[in-house]
Amino acid sequence: MLEELKKEVYEANMLLPKYKLITFTWGNVSAIDRKTGLIVIKPSGVDYEKMGPEDMVVVNLEGNVVEGKYKPSSDTPTHVKLYNEFSEIGGVVHTHSRWATIFAQAGKCIKSYGTTQADYFYNEIPCTRDMTPKEIKGQYEYNTGEVIVETFKNANPIHVPAVLVKNHGPFTWGKDAVEAVHNAVVLEEVAMMAWNTEVLANHNIETMPKELIEKHFMRKHGPNAYYGQ
Amino acid sequence: MLEELKKEVYEANMLLPKYKLITFTWGNVSAIDRKTGLIVIKPSGVDYEKMGPEDMVVVNLEGNVVEGKYKPSSDTPTHVKLYNEFSEIGGVVHTHSRWATIFAQAGKCIKSYGTTQADYFYNEIPCTRDMTPKEIKGQYEYNTGEVIVETFKNANPIHVPAVLVKNHGPFTWGKDAVEAVHNAVVLEEVAMMAWNTEVLANHNIETMPKELIEKHFMRKHGPNAYYGQ
Amino acid sequence: MLEELKKEVYEANMLLPKYKLITFTWGNVSAIDRKTGLIVIKPSGVDYEKMGPEDMVVVNLEGNVVEGKYKPSSDTPTHVKLYNEFSEIGGVVHTHSRWATIFAQAGKCIKSYGTTQADYFYNEIPCTRDMTPKEIKGQYEYNTGEVIVETFKNANPIHVPAVLVKNHGPFTWGKDAVEAVHNAVVLEEVAMMAWNTEVLANHNIETMPKELIEKHFMRKHGPNAYYGQ
Amino acid sequence: MLEELKKEVYEANMLLPKYKLITFTWGNVSAIDRKTGLIVIKPSGVDYEKMGPEDMVVVNLEGNVVEGKYKPSSDTPTHVKLYNEFSEIGGVVHTHSRWATIFAQAGKCIKSYGTTQADYFYNEIPCTRDMTPKEIKGQYEYNTGEVIVETFKNANPIHVPAVLVKNHGPFTWGKDAVEAVHNAVVLEEVAMMAWNTEVLANHNIETMPKELIEKHFMRKHGPNAYYGQ
Repeated sequence: MLEELKKEVYEANMLLPKYKLITFTWGNVSAIDRKTGLIVIKPSGVDYEKMGPEDMVVVNLEGNVVEGKYKPSSDTPTHVKLYNEFSEIGGVVHTHSRWATIFAQAGKCIKSYGTTQADYFYNEIPCTRDMTPKEIKGQYEYNTGEVIVETFKNANPIHVPAVLVKNHGPFTWGKDAVEAVHNAVVLEEVAMMAWNTEVLANHNIETMPKELIEKHFMRKHGPNAYYGQ
Repeated sequence: MLEELKKEVYEANMLLPKYKLITFTWGNVSAIDRKTGLIVIKPSGVDYEKMGPEDMVVVNLEGNVVEGKYKPSSDTPTHVKLYNEFSEIGGVVHTHSRWATIFAQAGKCIKSYGTTQADYFYNEIPCTRDMTPKEIKGQYEYNTGEVIVETFKNANPIHVPAVLVKNHGPFTWGKDAVEAVHNAVVLEEVAMMAWNTEVLANHNIETMPKELIEKHFMRKHGPNAYYGQ
Repeated sequence: MLEELKKEVYEANMLLPKYKLITFTWGNVSAIDRKTGLIVIKPSGVDYEKMGPEDMVVVNLEGNVVEGKYKPSSDTPTHVKLYNEFSEIGGVVHTHSRWATIFAQAGKCIKSYGTTQADYFYNEIPCTRDMTPKEIKGQYEYNTGEVIVETFKNANPIHVPAVLVKNHGPFTWGKDAVEAVHNAVVLEEVAMMAWNTEVLANHNIETMPKELIEKHFMRKHGPNAYYGQ
Repeated sequence: MLEELKKEVYEANMLLPKYKLITFTWGNVSAIDRKTGLIVIKPSGVDYEKMGPEDMVVVNLEGNVVEGKYKPSSDTPTHVKLYNEFSEIGGVVHTHSRWATIFAQAGKCIKSYGTTQADYFYNEIPCTRDMTPKEIKGQYEYNTGEVIVETFKNANPIHVPAVLVKNHGPFTWGKDAVEAVHNAVVLEEVAMMAWNTEVLANHNIETMPKELIEKHFMRKHGPNAYYGQ
């Protein structure tokens, strides 16, 4: 079932160590088949060296396992929540990549300081609020998805394909699994540069001009996009 | 004697350069066979490229050499002290890995800022007190073990499998040599992220909510553990 | 047409990933044949793994395509502007290399703190002014070239073969494509060291003595140059 | 002439890129044959990929070339000065390695914060004073050697086998070329950790206890040395 998508999700998971986004198995990628509403996701705690496409797990939009010899990643309820709420996305990535996680640990959003960020993100990359003790003790992974969705209640997830979960780490998404990984790489790069920009400026710096964000995002993603480096 | 454990300890030592935890020979791994009370440890000052399983040294819980063509690592008395005092551990690692050593040099503990740390450490990772001139001039390596044990007098070493020795560097441990190395890798990762979190926040930051530490540590290490990324 | 130069430009582009100056395709190199006034530049958005010398695009000094199956890099108007105004340069490089981009994002020039910089740059490496909303909304890439030229109105681009475009990233140049890439590598190195020098000094530091800049630049680039490390 | 030493110096030079101490050709290693008073040094500006043992240059203690098809490194007068003044050293290294150069650019010595440094350096690693305009305009490279020697007028260069030349970069030495490179690697490591220790402590930190420096340096280099990790 969904052999093509399993291969795609497997290969996207293998990009995480390639791009140095993970230590050990600290990350997972999923993708959805919108026709059937079925999600393919990395199995739980399996070593990347031993994993194959056939080990991917299939779950539905209620989060129930449909097929798989392993348990799905523990973060599955968060992925499922995002697919339910963000109807245009086709792939989701979660990692503890260093620079994005540092911002998440500090509870700070990643402000727009340069065109590298504006090429991909139309606004700052937000950080979620603290979860309540009740949310943490309850359906924690599902509730993690809820605070992400809450963070985007006035924003378009397609315009800002990433979020920092406070004291935890980033989730990114895209039209498919590979684009979600691509955005995870970009996020790490802009987080590293934003960190160093703020410290260079001794924590006293303004964001880039709005017109420049507009120009860079729109020449690449707008209706008249023409950009290619 | 203990050929299997020698191979295990040798291979665990070879993980130190693989994970970039050491420069030159600045590190050592040991493991204990609890049935016989014998400890296998890296020989002193032998190059990693030339070392083999048969070069490992066997010492007893009094720290005396039982077998070996080389001298055991100069840090052996510290390892031995930890095996005597922390009865549940099976492997010990010492390195001068960069980020953990930086915290040790600053005499600061590594506070809990994120779930990456809480997945492995139930509390902050402590730094030992200054050793007295008498402790330094006396049985220095043994006394290093003593101040580590003193640091854990009200703490469970299984819940926090790492310590920073002030002005020196980290020791980590685990149920066996490989887990001790695994924890040394995690320590380095969380130290790097904690450093950057504190500087990003301009040295003004609070630790993560207690409930979130509880959740992450317990979903992985508690009696009802279910976690796997 | 210009097969030799295409090969040269192709190979110079391939140096960008080799020297870790780029993520994905975030960079481009060009070179000019001064006899014919024709410029060879990287095509737009083509993967580095799939690109060959025959994919390079030829444009003239008005920025019009003369030959090529692909569109030229979107940054072509900036390159063309530089070739028109800086008559002694033969190659141009644009990247979003990390440390140079960090200074560009902070809107800060890279001051001269050491002989590594003075060996290549006779003065600080400047950062352009903010572009106006009109410049951004208009011929943006051409106007980017204009603000660079404006920044050098009282300076010699041969003495300082690099610039930081504010909130964007660096351009470097040289007598040919390979030298322009060489200067991009040096820029990244001196930017990294200048960043860390300023932070180590807690943002309170003076530049190096003028005589030392003079000595280092001139022993390497002056009429009586004798330097070779 | 001195074929064995040429091979040794060549191989020591090749360790500089291996240990990532240099960019391009920004470094050089030499060694002396104390019996004949002849020094073997890297030729000037030759690519590391094309260089062989036979390209090494031989100079005497007056700094005159005795044999060689290339010119010796421009830094030769500095090396020669050190061999004349520091009678116990057999090898010298100069690089622009990043972290040591950052301290040199800030004009700061590297204080002793941890045992990693104390294992090799009995005191802080000093930074030279500013050179005068006259010293810079005159025999600059020779004068560089003079200010290094001046810096050690009350110190033992064997106890502290490294120096930072202000606004320039480090020189290290040792009993032979390989040990001088070894010390250059250690210098880079302790500089990186000292930088991060000072910034973590928000520029407010004391050095390690004197007794701990004494213990670590002497257990490795003292008359009763017993150390081996």
